[in-house]
Amino acid sequence: MQNKKGVFITLEGSEGVGKSTNLAFIQHWLSERGLQPVMTREPGGTPMAEEIRTLLLQKRQETVSDKAELLLMFAARAQHLDTHIIPLLTEGRCVVSDRFTDATYAYQGYARGVDMSWITQLETLVQSDLRPDLTILLDLDIETAFKRVARRGEADRFEQEKTDFFDKVRSGYLDRARQEPDRFAVIDASQSIETVQHSIADVLADFFDTRAEP
Amino acid sequence: MQNKKGVFITLEGSEGVGKSTNLAFIQHWLSERGLQPVMTREPGGTPMAEEIRTLLLQKRQETVSDKAELLLMFAARAQHLDTHIIPLLTEGRCVVSDRFTDATYAYQGYARGVDMSWITQLETLVQSDLRPDLTILLDLDIETAFKRVARRGEADRFEQEKTDFFDKVRSGYLDRARQEPDRFAVIDASQSIETVQHSIADVLADFFDTRAEP
Ligand SMILES: Nc1ncnc2c1ncn2[C@@H]1O[C@H](COP(=O)(O)OP(=O)(O)O)[C@@H](O)[C@H]1O
Ligand SMILES: Nc1ncnc2c1ncn2[C@@H]1O[C@H](COP(=O)(O)OP(=O)(O)O)[C@@H](O)[C@H]1O
Ligand SMILES: [Mg+2]
Ligand SMILES: [Mg+2]
Repeated sequence: MQNKKGVFITLEGSEGVGKSTNLAFIQHWLSERGLQPVMTREPGGTPMAEEIRTLLLQKRQETVSDKAELLLMFAARAQHLDTHIIPLLTEGRCVVSDRFTDATYAYQGYARGVDMSWITQLETLVQSDLRPDLTILLDLDIETAFKRVARRGEADRFEQEKTDFFDKVRSGYLDRARQEPDRFAVIDASQSIETVQHSIADVLADFFDTRAEP
Repeated sequence: MQNKKGVFITLEGSEGVGKSTNLAFIQHWLSERGLQPVMTREPGGTPMAEEIRTLLLQKRQETVSDKAELLLMFAARAQHLDTHIIPLLTEGRCVVSDRFTDATYAYQGYARGVDMSWITQLETLVQSDLRPDLTILLDLDIETAFKRVARRGEADRFEQEKTDFFDKVRSGYLDRARQEPDRFAVIDASQSIETVQHSIADVLADFFDTRAEP
């Protein structure tokens, strides 16, 4: 992205790994550094994109075509980027998103089996060369994640998928982290919340210290 | 499209040219020929695609990103094609749609100024090589069209656009008709409903007679 002055951080991982739980911690950490971060999430992040999210997560009689699901994800992302994230990054702000395009690769690509080249094409169409500067991947075994999610109430259209689906999501995320080790920081999310947050703080400190170097 | 046995007809033209009015006539004409046509519309045509239509037509505070609008159109289209139109065409049915991808070129491309290559890319992604077999374009000057629409009640997000926008829609449609004269039949929609329907009947008779030849 031309003229991008801000920092774009994304938080990834399957259901129940602790993304939402740690968002407040990250916000606090960044604020202490004087960064005034803007926290957001996908799919969603603007009123219209949140309406698309609702449409996507709804359980329905109708079979949802893989292409329709993928295009809705990117429609929400285009709205989120064009009207919210890009203007903020251009102003120099730090934006943190609970999920972004790695989730599309993991869920629609690795788990649903949607053609990866469709995702790559849409990523280029919607984002041009904009990519996160840092992606924190919370990695957790499916069994523990399921137990955590169970405490959270009724499952949405994605959460009702089977173990096999989430196995593929998890290994898809890990595969992407291996492909882009510079952008990804993988954290063991089976640890206690305090330990996870220590690891997140280390990752953030490392990231900002490295950027600060000449 | 491989294995396409049916016939796919689309009806195009700007607001107020008489698409919806003539749909019932076309249905009647095809039924008399023993074709059991399935009538549908875009954006929409399935419950989920109709929800996307509602989202698209809603007037909102938020600026809608051109890319988000375009992706929503194609998301609705993917759902419509994959779960409704393609299965019907594969069965050998005749499907008639009030608007299809030419509308995306005319509205988002020619009128909004969205990059045509984005539309072409999405068309290929969503439709592969599926194109309408026949497209009936109802052509009408903007002033007359506006007068007809005014009788119809409150304007949606597209209908509230200015004359200049609809001039571009109209000339965009005509441009596409010039580029693909074999697929398009352009009808002067300023004539009386009876005359327009005579012209439509001629176009349909021509189309089916030509197809029937060895
Ligand atoms: N490290 C952890 N250890 C134990 N429970 C956790 C941990 N992190 C999060 N949780 C709990 O797991 C559940 C799911 O966490 P949540 O942040 O909603 O996950 P996500 O947003 O990734 O789906 C919540 O009840 C949360 O309190
Ligand atoms: N040939 C015609 N002459 C006069 N009025 C017409 C003609 N065709 C349609 N109308 C009227 O114009 C209005 C808009 O027609 P409609 O079929 O809803 O247009 P569209 O679906 O193309 O937007 C309706 O009130 C309809 O009765
Ligand atoms: Mg969450
Ligand atoms: Mg109509």
